[in-house]
Amino acid sequence: MKIRVGIVGGTGYTGAELVRILSRHPNVSVDVITARQFANSRFSDIFPSMVTIFDSKCESFELDSFCQRVDIAFVALPHKVSMEFVPNIIRNGLKVIDLSADFRFRDVTRYESVYHPHSAPELIQQSVYGLSEIYREQIKSSMLIGNPGCYPTSVLLPLIPLLKEKQIHSAGIIVDSKSGVSGAGRSPSLKTLFGEVNDNFKAYQVTGHRHRPEMEEQLSIAHGNPVRITFVPHLLPVNRGILTTIYASAQEGTTYDSLKKCMAKYYSGCPFVRVLPQQHLPALSYVRGTNLCDIWFTLEPELNRVIIISAIDNLVKGAAGQAVQNMNIMMGLSETTGLETTPSCV
Amino acid sequence: MKIRVGIVGGTGYTGAELVRILSRHPNVSVDVITARQFANSRFSDIFPSMVTIFDSKCESFELDSFCQRVDIAFVALPHKVSMEFVPNIIRNGLKVIDLSADFRFRDVTRYESVYHPHSAPELIQQSVYGLSEIYREQIKSSMLIGNPGCYPTSVLLPLIPLLKEKQIHSAGIIVDSKSGVSGAGRSPSLKTLFGEVNDNFKAYQVTGHRHRPEMEEQLSIAHGNPVRITFVPHLLPVNRGILTTIYASAQEGTTYDSLKKCMAKYYSGCPFVRVLPQQHLPALSYVRGTNLCDIWFTLEPELNRVIIISAIDNLVKGAAGQAVQNMNIMMGLSETTGLETTPSCV
Amino acid sequence: MKIRVGIVGGTGYTGAELVRILSRHPNVSVDVITARQFANSRFSDIFPSMVTIFDSKCESFELDSFCQRVDIAFVALPHKVSMEFVPNIIRNGLKVIDLSADFRFRDVTRYESVYHPHSAPELIQQSVYGLSEIYREQIKSSMLIGNPGCYPTSVLLPLIPLLKEKQIHSAGIIVDSKSGVSGAGRSPSLKTLFGEVNDNFKAYQVTGHRHRPEMEEQLSIAHGNPVRITFVPHLLPVNRGILTTIYASAQEGTTYDSLKKCMAKYYSGCPFVRVLPQQHLPALSYVRGTNLCDIWFTLEPELNRVIIISAIDNLVKGAAGQAVQNMNIMMGLSETTGLETTPSCV
Amino acid sequence: MKIRVGIVGGTGYTGAELVRILSRHPNVSVDVITARQFANSRFSDIFPSMVTIFDSKCESFELDSFCQRVDIAFVALPHKVSMEFVPNIIRNGLKVIDLSADFRFRDVTRYESVYHPHSAPELIQQSVYGLSEIYREQIKSSMLIGNPGCYPTSVLLPLIPLLKEKQIHSAGIIVDSKSGVSGAGRSPSLKTLFGEVNDNFKAYQVTGHRHRPEMEEQLSIAHGNPVRITFVPHLLPVNRGILTTIYASAQEGTTYDSLKKCMAKYYSGCPFVRVLPQQHLPALSYVRGTNLCDIWFTLEPELNRVIIISAIDNLVKGAAGQAVQNMNIMMGLSETTGLETTPSCV
Repeated sequence: MKIRVGIVGGTGYTGAELVRILSRHPNVSVDVITARQFANSRFSDIFPSMVTIFDSKCESFELDSFCQRVDIAFVALPHKVSMEFVPNIIRNGLKVIDLSADFRFRDVTRYESVYHPHSAPELIQQSVYGLSEIYREQIKSSMLIGNPGCYPTSVLLPLIPLLKEKQIHSAGIIVDSKSGVSGAGRSPSLKTLFGEVNDNFKAYQVTGHRHRPEMEEQLSIAHGNPVRITFVPHLLPVNRGILTTIYASAQEGTTYDSLKKCMAKYYSGCPFVRVLPQQHLPALSYVRGTNLCDIWFTLEPELNRVIIISAIDNLVKGAAGQAVQNMNIMMGLSETTGLETTPSCV
Repeated sequence: MKIRVGIVGGTGYTGAELVRILSRHPNVSVDVITARQFANSRFSDIFPSMVTIFDSKCESFELDSFCQRVDIAFVALPHKVSMEFVPNIIRNGLKVIDLSADFRFRDVTRYESVYHPHSAPELIQQSVYGLSEIYREQIKSSMLIGNPGCYPTSVLLPLIPLLKEKQIHSAGIIVDSKSGVSGAGRSPSLKTLFGEVNDNFKAYQVTGHRHRPEMEEQLSIAHGNPVRITFVPHLLPVNRGILTTIYASAQEGTTYDSLKKCMAKYYSGCPFVRVLPQQHLPALSYVRGTNLCDIWFTLEPELNRVIIISAIDNLVKGAAGQAVQNMNIMMGLSETTGLETTPSCV
Repeated sequence: MKIRVGIVGGTGYTGAELVRILSRHPNVSVDVITARQFANSRFSDIFPSMVTIFDSKCESFELDSFCQRVDIAFVALPHKVSMEFVPNIIRNGLKVIDLSADFRFRDVTRYESVYHPHSAPELIQQSVYGLSEIYREQIKSSMLIGNPGCYPTSVLLPLIPLLKEKQIHSAGIIVDSKSGVSGAGRSPSLKTLFGEVNDNFKAYQVTGHRHRPEMEEQLSIAHGNPVRITFVPHLLPVNRGILTTIYASAQEGTTYDSLKKCMAKYYSGCPFVRVLPQQHLPALSYVRGTNLCDIWFTLEPELNRVIIISAIDNLVKGAAGQAVQNMNIMMGLSETTGLETTPSCV
Repeated sequence: MKIRVGIVGGTGYTGAELVRILSRHPNVSVDVITARQFANSRFSDIFPSMVTIFDSKCESFELDSFCQRVDIAFVALPHKVSMEFVPNIIRNGLKVIDLSADFRFRDVTRYESVYHPHSAPELIQQSVYGLSEIYREQIKSSMLIGNPGCYPTSVLLPLIPLLKEKQIHSAGIIVDSKSGVSGAGRSPSLKTLFGEVNDNFKAYQVTGHRHRPEMEEQLSIAHGNPVRITFVPHLLPVNRGILTTIYASAQEGTTYDSLKKCMAKYYSGCPFVRVLPQQHLPALSYVRGTNLCDIWFTLEPELNRVIIISAIDNLVKGAAGQAVQNMNIMMGLSETTGLETTPSCV
């Protein structure tokens, strides 16, 4: 019997990516897609790439009907809207994987300092931060997952092991990230018009991006003490992908080999984390369309500087793919089910 | 003494391109820019590329003030809005170059069949179609120019000579055009989001594009009898440029040399039309940022097919550049003044 | 037991795409990859996207060893080189799917007029043109497949039904194709440098492209009489995909419905051909990474013009994917095995 | 009388950009272009964008003829080749602006540690580092300019004032640069093929790029003591432009205002350096095709971190444009002559 899946808010890029992945998932049937704006439209009329592949109609969200027809809900709504829907769904006994920021934080105050007042703080304690490789055990038995942001996924997967194993200092970490445009969503805006982005490049929200507190909370948990980082995101003229270059100070005794061992300790059994050898620097194309996170690092000996480069597809490992990975873990399936995509050569 | 110029609607891509060109024009001072949405904003706050180069403030349009401070007006408003402004400006004795479709047609009925009812049909008889190389003499003494559409410019410059000189048949002409995204303007819309256009390609408005009647009217004038064409526009993942491939049937007696002579007859003295030799096919990069129209042609002898390829920058020769060229002609300046940009090598 | 597959010439884009598809194919094991230039290199050192996914080493081609370890060979060598390898492999009893032009033509003279003298003309009679949907029955029992060119696939799938069913005239067909850059292969050349292609667009080999005779041969077979077409290919600044716009004259009696019925007759059971409804024009993004061919058409009534637009991924349905589809047919597998990729939304 | 200019090695991207700029320069005539590979070809046959604009023929270099016909030479040859040509040209009394790395270093040892043995070390003492805004006085009377590298230009213009004025610490400077592809030149290579770069992003030569020692030498001169930096270059899928994000530690007492004053002190009279206000982050599009260097900075108070972002066009301010600026200075012309290009809005 297939797991019955519902997607709330299925017509943004993240929702559409969920449909793309889940419509081929062998253990799942996508039974409900809700989308206020497109209720009664065929999904394939909104995304014509899906003609003949997924022609179901979107509906408006009705709690009872939804909860009767669905075992697990993916919620792909904007911040704030999400926390209005999730409590009711949870109350009806469904598992929920929430892709907004609303259930990512342990500390409500931190959340509220960059988002808005939280209307369901009691759920925050139940929710698990869905960074699959780090929180796999807690995810198994959780009812509610706060699926990580895209930038945080690219930053935390490499940094958490290095902080935990005291390979790097917690002070002075600099994160220079470069993201594709799909991270900004599918709502028309001047900033993401083709003419403004194509053949162009710029930084944005320097020091003020909302993903910084999310990262700092997780890094502080890993380190055991408060961690503050410098974070500068940039907008790349590509559809998908985040490449992050991280600069940190090596602890005494850190060597290239100790960094390698540290990464192996955390990720040797992980099908989606590839620790690349020295000769292969990460590239967006190597992970595009896949749930992979590629990690590369080096040690600049004279300066005792650790340089780490990571790459993910922001819509897959940075959103919908990791959400499905979390569903697989919650449902006792093999972690890679439905996610075995091979990146293409060009 | 400099010519005092005003731009009405200066904050779309066309308006901004007018500012870019006119702000370096040696015989002109840009004294007024109006923009309802951005009144009181510095132009360089809307387009930060212009910081230190053009920092004047935009204003809201006030007829009297405008007409006192300006000798010639460029109107870069949307269709329909334009014909509400132009009559008043003309009435105040200013020359007007209108970049909308409102004064491009000779035949009001044709205009109204694809746009909307015309509120200033009396002006249509006074206006001259601003295809500079073809209507240079009429432009000299005109008070009102209907500046051509971007697609029509790329199609009419090569076709008018061939039709007039009976090198090709008027029946069966097929126009397959490919345009950069800036042609769709700067208003946010789903269709021109980066994620929808980048690494993508598609046709749009097949057979139904509004530029078809504009082209057909001009081709019919050139031919002396009604001409109907097939026109399919496509959207390229580039910022600027139109490349048009045209297929026509050769008249008996047409040879490669007769085509060449025909083009030379019309364009040998024209600084902005380059008839490329056989070995150099047009490319968008060869005309980007310039007022050039490159034209190439061949004859497929077995099939008696004439294939013509033209390339322009849609914002320059296809809009703002040709408008300035027309101003130069109207004002008795050298046609190339302010338009001598060299395309770049990469 | 898995089918043992060998790839000869596995390190161009087409070869790499074969590896990408076949490495996930459930009924296949890729046992040999040969590549003169990269013998003894890991495949994943040439294409680092494949690290941990396909790390086998490339080898140099040795006939006996190859033929003992392989049941079916994909040959992805350049024209001319291919026909030196294929006869020996066939002689050893292997089935061969050749992706060069060497076994695509029925008429050796036509082949030699645009390529070079053919050294294995006797094999031409045995080979089947691998346009899967059209030649499915012959493919089933064939030992040698001449896998179609990328442009011809995009042109023949829509045109063959229309010609066979006399919906269009065979004279005056115009094919305006636009292709991504990967069609030009992975060998460094000035023409395919990023700086020459990005934000650019141009036609190339106007009237002289080698795929024209390949198309004309197949169209002539379908029509029963010689067919000559006009074919102009253009180079798009995208990695993958061909979008082709075709113009033809409707036969008397042709209507939109008769066109629709004609397409349905040929493709209603075909999983990879999608005949799109009027409201959805094809786009490269709808087929990227998939084996789909999307077809759209309209009738311009006043002019009796049929306009057809098709879209494929040149490396999948235009090369490696169709090759695997042909293997599936030859081996009695379900046609879609290993090819069920969903196009992505962005 | 016009200054007679010769370009040695005029058919790479840098050479072509020199031609583009100099062919419109009002005080200059480009009398000789040499290019071994293309001797006797028209320049416009190599770069068809220049048809009708610059049709002169390239020649092979002959010392005597060259020196008789030219007053000042731009040498755009590769490293090592350049130092074979320059001494002879200098000896003939010509002024030389060399765009290779060969005359950029004060310290031959440093040069040789990353390039190769230097065959004209005596000239190094005469040459002036052509960072126009910093070395304007020395450039005025120099016979030989070592024109700066593209990355160094984007890094040194913002950092030299801050180091000299002790606004930042010299230790711990991190430079994360992102460059367009034209920086890699026009020679065909796998790494710069469209398919390898488009819709992609990656770092390269992490810690080992040759521009690092060039920057470190200049930073050490500005600081008075040896400076070591971390430098990671990345390859952007754009034709032109470098955007550099720099992270440094603020000295005690540094404020946003002190940073602003420091920049004003160095650049307030400089037409090509724009210090952008807080609300406008630099973007490649704002400087494309121009000789501008845009600089933006902020202070992250809690962390005492100075973040600086600069943007240039790598072929203009990063190469050919700065070379012409230097020529203007050497020849007593206004610094902006021939360089007054306005960036475009899209």
